[in-house]
Amino acid sequence: MAVIDRRVTVSSERVMAMGIDILARAQAPSPAAEQQVRQLVEGDLRGRPSHGIQRLPTLVARIENGVLDAQASPTVAGRGTATALVDGGHGFGPPAAHLAVDRAAALARAHGIGLVAIRQAGHLGMLAPYVERLAADGLVGIALTTSEALVHPAGGRVAMVGTNPIAIGVPADPDPYVLDMATGAISAGEIIAHADREQDLPAGCAVDAAGRPTIDPRAALAGAISPFGGAKGYGLGLGIELLVALLSATALGQDVHGTLDATKPVTKGDLVIAVDPGGVTGAAVSDYLAALRASPRAADGAPVLVPGDRMRAERARCLVEGIAYPEVLWSRLVLLAGGEDA
Amino acid sequence: MAVIDRRVTVSSERVMAMGIDILARAQAPSPAAEQQVRQLVEGDLRGRPSHGIQRLPTLVARIENGVLDAQASPTVAGRGTATALVDGGHGFGPPAAHLAVDRAAALARAHGIGLVAIRQAGHLGMLAPYVERLAADGLVGIALTTSEALVHPAGGRVAMVGTNPIAIGVPADPDPYVLDMATGAISAGEIIAHADREQDLPAGCAVDAAGRPTIDPRAALAGAISPFGGAKGYGLGLGIELLVALLSATALGQDVHGTLDATKPVTKGDLVIAVDPGGVTGAAVSDYLAALRASPRAADGAPVLVPGDRMRAERARCLVEGIAYPEVLWSRLVLLAGGEDA
Repeated sequence: MAVIDRRVTVSSERVMAMGIDILARAQAPSPAAEQQVRQLVEGDLRGRPSHGIQRLPTLVARIENGVLDAQASPTVAGRGTATALVDGGHGFGPPAAHLAVDRAAALARAHGIGLVAIRQAGHLGMLAPYVERLAADGLVGIALTTSEALVHPAGGRVAMVGTNPIAIGVPADPDPYVLDMATGAISAGEIIAHADREQDLPAGCAVDAAGRPTIDPRAALAGAISPFGGAKGYGLGLGIELLVALLSATALGQDVHGTLDATKPVTKGDLVIAVDPGGVTGAAVSDYLAALRASPRAADGAPVLVPGDRMRAERARCLVEGIAYPEVLWSRLVLLAGGEDA
Repeated sequence: MAVIDRRVTVSSERVMAMGIDILARAQAPSPAAEQQVRQLVEGDLRGRPSHGIQRLPTLVARIENGVLDAQASPTVAGRGTATALVDGGHGFGPPAAHLAVDRAAALARAHGIGLVAIRQAGHLGMLAPYVERLAADGLVGIALTTSEALVHPAGGRVAMVGTNPIAIGVPADPDPYVLDMATGAISAGEIIAHADREQDLPAGCAVDAAGRPTIDPRAALAGAISPFGGAKGYGLGLGIELLVALLSATALGQDVHGTLDATKPVTKGDLVIAVDPGGVTGAAVSDYLAALRASPRAADGAPVLVPGDRMRAERARCLVEGIAYPEVLWSRLVLLAGGEDA
């Protein structure tokens, strides 16, 4: 069966305007809605459509179902001298995250390091833009998030750990180091996309319901995602789960909800850490990253990259050429906006 | 060719005494020498011989060569309100690390979080005991270290990144979560052990000098270790390299020396972070870890473990049964101790 993959290419400004329009119809006030939509469009611009505007319909459904409060404003309260807690009030994630970034940066400037935990905020979207903002400000940034349990433990077969991403930003010239990676071997969205295209999965990404490794995307959907890198990736993802849940007093494992579904209050948490490198110059970091990029390639000839490079190139390209959305997604957005697609 | 692998089984007390005796002959004062040897023996007890007493001859050679100052005492200086810097004075690593743990814990109690960077200290040994100590104290602990460049970047073939381990400790009952993992797919010691046994490497662990994946340990020794988990593990290991080097003002990439060789001053760095979970109860963490351990096994039937479980079981076993050292290593230690093996 041939799979139809018609695309509509749209400028980021046009998606932004349409997204804000859609949220305005859901009674979301303008600055929060703009931060939310911008974060989704950043996902698309950076080649991560799973964190892109395709999440907007779920957000609208969450508002309609009363589990996302579009009017909420996040609040921040101090905890220790160098720590704070942001409460999202069950509103959008990005406004809470930007508040946490601001506070973490201020704490780092004042005390050398700052840690801000976030609870009761919606999905933050891609973490990269937050740590990138800290790095642009001359600070080291780390962000961690829990998410719905989709990953099986090493040696297990039931999804009990989130795909828990980690992001790290380090200032450098001409571009910062920006890592943003999930600790699952593949995203749920990618498995669904493989199923839609009737394509095998890469080996080692998932197990079926009996815990056997599978490359069949439908069997994987009935099973669980594998941790990336085996037992080590499991250990790291689990470590993120524990750190975030303990320090933000949020849920663990299968009790984590509210970023993929449209019906449950959000129970995941997030952490933002900023560190001030102080008087230390970052020139050595920049030189080292340049040496990595210039280092000899593997036998297959692809160039050596540093985390953030591909994302940055994709973003620059999409800002010029536009973002290619599946026609079915774009039609759905047009419908949500009241059918007004100019 | 048959490979002879004769073993001598020795109690941990006996190794401790012999190690302290060896360092006393190298003019190392007693408390520092005891911390150093205890940390090496902990590596052996926990099933990580690459971080065990086999490193002692190199430490002795470093003292003899004047690049490790056995008399040095680490010093600590405040930086920000919640950050500090330990200078190891080119002495042993473990005393500097324990000082950093003490200070990080005090900062976390006072300010919610504390970060202590370490420079000019010898190899810390396994990181697990340090974060375990923080966890036993009710704190979350994170430790990061740089090491000699042995790992090639994803897409590259030259060793330019350390095997940079990360350790995370989280308080829980009955046992804490203790992750301690390198970001290389295999250790250099394991590759050498495979070469000695004329055994193939597991696939995906290393590349040869031309950057081609190899399972031949001798080809791997001429090439580089691969990052664990592909591009993600590379990103994580590189992130650790940058964080540690920037915040401890230590070296990067191929400029990192002094943990494997016997002739160069140490240029690697370390970070210890402690976080106080405050009033938050960790009961949910303990329940979640118990649920993971009780969760259904994969098709192959091995039990589901949590990071730290295997290490803890191995330690308990070795405390009772003793540690089985290769005869050739034990003979070398006996010689270093002046030939007095009772």
